[in-house]
Amino acid sequence: MMTTNKTISTFIPPVRTLMGPGPSDVHPRILNAMARSTIGHLDPEFVALMDEMKTLLQYAFQTKNELTIPVSAPGSAGMETCFVNLIEPGDTVIVCQNGVFGGRMKENVERIGATAIMVEDEWGMPVDPNKLEEALKAHPEASTVAFVHAETSTGAQSDAAALVKIAHAHDCLTIVDAVTSLGGTPVKVDEWGIDAIYSGTQKCLSCTPGLSPVSFSDAAVERIKNRKTAVQSWFLDLNLVMGYWGAGAKRAYHHTAPVNGLYGLHEALVILQEEGLENAWARHQSNHLALRAGIEAMGLSFVVPEAARLPQLNAVTIPDGVDEAAVRGRLLNDFNLEIGAGLGALAGKVWRIGLMGHASNAKNIMFCLGTLDTVLTDMGAPIKNGVAVAAAQAAMS
Amino acid sequence: MMTTNKTISTFIPPVRTLMGPGPSDVHPRILNAMARSTIGHLDPEFVALMDEMKTLLQYAFQTKNELTIPVSAPGSAGMETCFVNLIEPGDTVIVCQNGVFGGRMKENVERIGATAIMVEDEWGMPVDPNKLEEALKAHPEASTVAFVHAETSTGAQSDAAALVKIAHAHDCLTIVDAVTSLGGTPVKVDEWGIDAIYSGTQKCLSCTPGLSPVSFSDAAVERIKNRKTAVQSWFLDLNLVMGYWGAGAKRAYHHTAPVNGLYGLHEALVILQEEGLENAWARHQSNHLALRAGIEAMGLSFVVPEAARLPQLNAVTIPDGVDEAAVRGRLLNDFNLEIGAGLGALAGKVWRIGLMGHASNAKNIMFCLGTLDTVLTDMGAPIKNGVAVAAAQAAMS
Repeated sequence: MMTTNKTISTFIPPVRTLMGPGPSDVHPRILNAMARSTIGHLDPEFVALMDEMKTLLQYAFQTKNELTIPVSAPGSAGMETCFVNLIEPGDTVIVCQNGVFGGRMKENVERIGATAIMVEDEWGMPVDPNKLEEALKAHPEASTVAFVHAETSTGAQSDAAALVKIAHAHDCLTIVDAVTSLGGTPVKVDEWGIDAIYSGTQKCLSCTPGLSPVSFSDAAVERIKNRKTAVQSWFLDLNLVMGYWGAGAKRAYHHTAPVNGLYGLHEALVILQEEGLENAWARHQSNHLALRAGIEAMGLSFVVPEAARLPQLNAVTIPDGVDEAAVRGRLLNDFNLEIGAGLGALAGKVWRIGLMGHASNAKNIMFCLGTLDTVLTDMGAPIKNGVAVAAAQAAMS
Repeated sequence: MMTTNKTISTFIPPVRTLMGPGPSDVHPRILNAMARSTIGHLDPEFVALMDEMKTLLQYAFQTKNELTIPVSAPGSAGMETCFVNLIEPGDTVIVCQNGVFGGRMKENVERIGATAIMVEDEWGMPVDPNKLEEALKAHPEASTVAFVHAETSTGAQSDAAALVKIAHAHDCLTIVDAVTSLGGTPVKVDEWGIDAIYSGTQKCLSCTPGLSPVSFSDAAVERIKNRKTAVQSWFLDLNLVMGYWGAGAKRAYHHTAPVNGLYGLHEALVILQEEGLENAWARHQSNHLALRAGIEAMGLSFVVPEAARLPQLNAVTIPDGVDEAAVRGRLLNDFNLEIGAGLGALAGKVWRIGLMGHASNAKNIMFCLGTLDTVLTDMGAPIKNGVAVAAAQAAMS
C-alpha cells in the first residue's frame, strides 16, 4: 500500500481582489449557488434549469439561436467546439490575429488538417477589415473567417459587425471569440450575423472559471448537420451534445454535466438579467473612464488606441526602469490584489488591469489605484504620486 | 434590444439522495469548498494547491506517475485525453466492450482515424482475458489495449491486472476506464502496470461532476513525447497541459483552470486520505453486502455474477410486470431519492443503485430499501414485502 509522504489538509484560499485578465472577482451569490446540493444531470429539475440557462444565454448573446448552450469545459474548449464542428480536413480558414488568441485559433485549424490563412495585425490594434477583405479576395476557397472580438492578451476590441459583413459577402461563415467581451461590452449575435461564438464564465459574467457559453446560427447548425466527416472530438461533437441540450422532454445522455458549475453560471446570468445588459455595458464603460483618469494622472498610458479600447481590460504601459513582476508581487503579497502580466508579444511591457463584471466597481478602482501608487512610489518609479485616486474620484462624480 | 420573455430567478435545487450511477451524494465539506473565494489560476497559492492535488491523486491511484492530474472537464474528456494523446491515425487498438463505455472508446479510436478491433463480452459480464489474448494473437499490429475496469452501465468489474499483463506480453500499452472504481474498489496503477487511466469526480470520490483525474506511466509519456503527428485536440494536448501542471515554479499558461471545481476535488481527496483507501474500499464492500441482503430478501436479484460485482454500483433486475420508470418517478417525487435506469442493452431491464463514496452509508441503504419496498408493494409488484430493511440491518450487525 502506497501512502502519501505528507498529510494534506483542507485548502483555505486567501481572499484576493481579482483585477487581472480573469478569473475575475466572483459575485458572492454565485459562490453560494455553487455550494447548493447536487442533483442528477437527468433530473427533471435539472432539465428545467437547462431550459432556463438557454433563455438566459440567448439574452446575454442577444440571439434567438436555438443552439445556445454552455460547453462543459473552459473557454479553450469552447473555441475548440466551434472549430472542430464547423471545419473539416482540407478546408481553408481565414484567421485574423492581433494577439495570443488568434494564434490559438490557428492551432485549432491546423490540428483539424485544415489550412489557416493568417491576417496579421499589430498586438494592441484591432483587426483591420481591409486586410480581411484582401485575404478573402486572394483566397476564394475559404469557407470560414475567425477572429477575436475582444483580445484578452491586449485589451483591443475589433469591429465584429464589420468583419462579419465582409466574411458573409464572400460566402464565409464566422467564428468569433467573445471570451472577454460577453457581459462587458455589446455582443449582438443576431444583429451582427455571427455564426459561431464562444465565451468564458470567468470574465464579465463574474462566475468561476470552467464553462464556455457558445451559440450557433441556423447556417452553422446546417453546416454541422451536413458534414462529410465525423467531428474529430466525441466530447465536443455538437450533433451529440444537441441531443442532451436539445428541445423536448426526452434528453439523451451524452456526458455528465458539471451540475454545480452550472448552478453558478445560472446565477451569474440571473444577476446579469437583473442589472440589464445595457446597464452592465454602461457600468463597465464609466468605470473604465474612472480608472483611466487615475492611470493617466499618474503619467501612465494605454497600449490600445482609445477607439478600440476595451473598458473591461486595460493594458497599461509599465514606467521606465520598473521591475513589473516585483510590482505585481507586492500588490499580491501586501494587498491581496491580483493584476495581470503581459502575454506573448506584450510580456514584460504591460500590466493588464481587469474591470470585469462584479469586479468593475468604484471600490476596486480606488483600491487598485491607491495601492499601485503606493508601491510604485515606494520603488522610486517615475510617476506622479498621490493624485491617481483623486483623479478617478473626480471622473466618477 | 432583445429581452427574455420571462424573468428567471435564482435556482434552488431540491435536496435529493443520489443513489444512481453518479453524480452521487456530495460530501458537505466539498460543497463548502466549492464556495470558497476564487483565486487566480497562476496565483502562487493555487500552484501550491496543484502540487498537493498531484500528491493526493497519486495516492488515490496508487502510483508514483509524475503525470497525474485532473483534466479540466468531465470523465468523457478524460477518456478522450487518453485516446487522442496515445493513439495516432493508422494505429490499431484492441477495445474490450462489455457495456456502454467500451462503445464510447471505439468512437474515440475511430475519430482519430485509427482502427478499433472489438473484443465483445455480454453486458453484465467481465471482460474475458482469453478473448483479449486471442485478439492480440490475431492482430500483432495492435499498439494499445483499452478496457473498462468498472462498467458504470452494468456494474461489472473486470480483472484489470490480468488484462494489463496480457496486453504487455504483446507489447501493447493500456488505457483503462476507472470512472466508477476509483475510491470505491482497489485501483492499483503501479502494481497492475496500467499505462493510462482516467476517472471521474462524481462517483466514489463524492465530489461534484466536471473533472476527470488521469494518470500516465513513463512509457505512456514517452509515447506522447515521440508522436509523429500533433495531438488533434489543442485543449487536451498533454504536451501543453504538462507545461501548466508540470514540476517547477515556472508554470506556462495553457487554459484557465476551473479553480473552484478544483477546490472541491482537493477536499474530496483530503477526505479520502483521512479515511484511508483501504477503509474506503472495505466500507463500500460491507455496505454492498447489506444492500444485497435487503434486495435478495425482497426476492430481487443481481445481473452481474457475484465474483465480478461492483459493490458501488448494483444492477438489480426489475420484478415482472413493473413499470420501472414509474417506480423511479415515485422514488424521486415522493422521497427525493434518485436511483438509475438501465443504459443501452440493459435499458428497461435493470435499476442501477449506487452506493458510491459519501452515499455509501447505512442510512442510505435503509432509506432506499424502505422506500423501494413501499413503492413496489403499493404498485402490487411480486416481491416479498416488509423484510428488506431488517435483512440489511441483520447483515450489518
